[in-house]
Amino acid sequence: MDIQELVRGLKTPNDSKIVMLVADGLGGLPLEPGGATELETAKTPHLDALARRGVCGSMYPIARGVTPGSGPGHLGLFGYDPVKYLIGRGALEATGVGFKLTDADVAVRCNFCTLDAKGNITDRRAGRIPTEKSAPLAAKLRQVKISGVEVFVEPVKEHRFVVVFRARGLGGNVTDTDPQCTGTPPLEPVALDSNSRKTLEVAKQFLEQAGGLLAGEPKANGLTMRGFSAKPDVPTYEEVYGLRAAAIAVYPMYKGLAQLVGMEIVGEPNTLEEEIDVLEQAFNEYDFFFVHFKYTDSRGEDGDFDAKVTMTEAFDAVVPRVEALRPTVLIVTGDHSTPAKLRSHSWHPVPTLLVADDSRGDPCEVFGETAALGGALGHFSAVELMPLALAHAGRLGKFGA
Amino acid sequence: MDIQELVRGLKTPNDSKIVMLVADGLGGLPLEPGGATELETAKTPHLDALARRGVCGSMYPIARGVTPGSGPGHLGLFGYDPVKYLIGRGALEATGVGFKLTDADVAVRCNFCTLDAKGNITDRRAGRIPTEKSAPLAAKLRQVKISGVEVFVEPVKEHRFVVVFRARGLGGNVTDTDPQCTGTPPLEPVALDSNSRKTLEVAKQFLEQAGGLLAGEPKANGLTMRGFSAKPDVPTYEEVYGLRAAAIAVYPMYKGLAQLVGMEIVGEPNTLEEEIDVLEQAFNEYDFFFVHFKYTDSRGEDGDFDAKVTMTEAFDAVVPRVEALRPTVLIVTGDHSTPAKLRSHSWHPVPTLLVADDSRGDPCEVFGETAALGGALGHFSAVELMPLALAHAGRLGKFGA
Repeated sequence: MDIQELVRGLKTPNDSKIVMLVADGLGGLPLEPGGATELETAKTPHLDALARRGVCGSMYPIARGVTPGSGPGHLGLFGYDPVKYLIGRGALEATGVGFKLTDADVAVRCNFCTLDAKGNITDRRAGRIPTEKSAPLAAKLRQVKISGVEVFVEPVKEHRFVVVFRARGLGGNVTDTDPQCTGTPPLEPVALDSNSRKTLEVAKQFLEQAGGLLAGEPKANGLTMRGFSAKPDVPTYEEVYGLRAAAIAVYPMYKGLAQLVGMEIVGEPNTLEEEIDVLEQAFNEYDFFFVHFKYTDSRGEDGDFDAKVTMTEAFDAVVPRVEALRPTVLIVTGDHSTPAKLRSHSWHPVPTLLVADDSRGDPCEVFGETAALGGALGHFSAVELMPLALAHAGRLGKFGA
Repeated sequence: MDIQELVRGLKTPNDSKIVMLVADGLGGLPLEPGGATELETAKTPHLDALARRGVCGSMYPIARGVTPGSGPGHLGLFGYDPVKYLIGRGALEATGVGFKLTDADVAVRCNFCTLDAKGNITDRRAGRIPTEKSAPLAAKLRQVKISGVEVFVEPVKEHRFVVVFRARGLGGNVTDTDPQCTGTPPLEPVALDSNSRKTLEVAKQFLEQAGGLLAGEPKANGLTMRGFSAKPDVPTYEEVYGLRAAAIAVYPMYKGLAQLVGMEIVGEPNTLEEEIDVLEQAFNEYDFFFVHFKYTDSRGEDGDFDAKVTMTEAFDAVVPRVEALRPTVLIVTGDHSTPAKLRSHSWHPVPTLLVADDSRGDPCEVFGETAALGGALGHFSAVELMPLALAHAGRLGKFGA
């Protein structure tokens, strides 16, 4: 059963407000057997109070045992089957810098790199060249001209930039040129289907001309291409759920993901506090709010347990401001777990809570991984979260007579 | 995976007896946060004793967040994927009054209504005309003659009746004529696919002739048509499970649903006590018994928490009589939740219990929504209930060698 398809036919508009607070990488692991996770260690009085008022559960982003990337993790949270809707990294990166992809586009993530005299890569990130230097270089690459193809080059950050090719008949199935190691030249790209042969030719021309334009650079004298991808065909939040949705995030990737499902990017916040400012300001204008908090994931990736605890407490601290807006449904979750112990995303389920007047209640007294195991939401899939949100918001009609 | 298909290949006959007691709309909500639901408030010593003996769980009729109508709710309980097997309201209503649909039939729910001199509806239910008056009127409509089509008209209750058209080539995809409001005339029906064009012509002829026959009536001088539907193609309980199944219900809708899956309607009980009388009398004749209790749902729909508690206690009171029959498997569940707080069906899971000699046991000491969260059946889908029933009855062989 495609739950989203089912829900789509039942949607019923009303004036409710749904807020989804996403603490990236929220779930964790104890450092020692029998210990507490980062979330269980953190002092989170406001989240604990929400857990007492609402219902908790243990959420699987994709499937048991599967560790999600940020793309699939968020798509699942948004209710889109992440295995059905595959979003290429290039498309994600382009959307993340505010580039509006069309159906004629293929987007590619690119890295500036350093090549030695033989053409071998000596630094895959061109010495992490600062954005002030890399952005003008990326702009310089706009000089590349390819007959019959529009070429867009957009700086991202440090050594990263995005290239978008626009023409009829471009497939997205071309292999990466980044060899993922130094001491060898960039790989030759390969077209994996006949639809992508034209893309391959275009990419080769780009690489050749760009190579010439970068030749004199001290550090960024080469580039690699990764994640070739066409625009994914994803229905919007408005189409599927009837929701005018706002995304509030600091980082481009999460803005990009939200934009792909038709959310509007609201504000330009730089901190969690500013994100809540934006939420307050935009609260009357939208039905649904995705608020993304990055640093629980970042400190987990650093392997810094204590710092992740501190970030979790910072996240807890803004909860009263969100509650003061009296959303009809308030959800707190993550796109995946990032245990400091593992220094990476993991497959462990994500503790999740939902607060609404018509939730049934459960025995959870605190918000944490262990408590959530006995919660009323049970053990569930991320794609089931939006139907629950809509139901508790009174936005789903009855199925069948 | 289609669980029913899997089970179908494993069925193994024996002499076991399975009783499924369905308290319609059983699940509820507390009136205040942290309070008890209707079921948790009710004094249910017999159900609690069953919970201690057996296993409990939290059952989702369709999917998380989805509120089922009575049709899908019961189909799920019977083990039929309610999203795959869609039963139109007309087909349901016809079956509910004992009309045996054939593959050549399209059934339509009709309402008598009151029209003013301009043909606008002034009362969509003809003043809720009593059955004594409406039944003869429905019978009068049997005078309608349509060339090449058999027309059946069956009274239901008050303003409601059913029309069945029987002919080759009738599709069921025609829109309702009930505008769902007063002050306008009935809508023109529209055929939504080419298979249904003939049905549309037949319906128009029926409406015209019926209009003439009703013209002089003081209240029921018009009619509306809703829920056009062909007979759904559903395999029977005997085919799927190898069960001779009996349905014991007071209300036509539930008899109709049971009949669609091949259950036999047994007895003509008018009360729960009489339903148990019928169960006792028929106990040797069948393998499976569906016993439907309506009033938990009715009082929930009324928004009367205390009355739903009372009805739950009345339901509990007959449990010893069922236990005395010593069924191999006894199940107590509902087709959906109907919290008095919401005055309607809801998406909340349904507390469910199963008692059998070979159930494993769990920590549940009472039968209630919160206790069921920690039960051995876990959080499960309605379509998983029949496989569990069959397994505990020793009626499922091993899958694979």
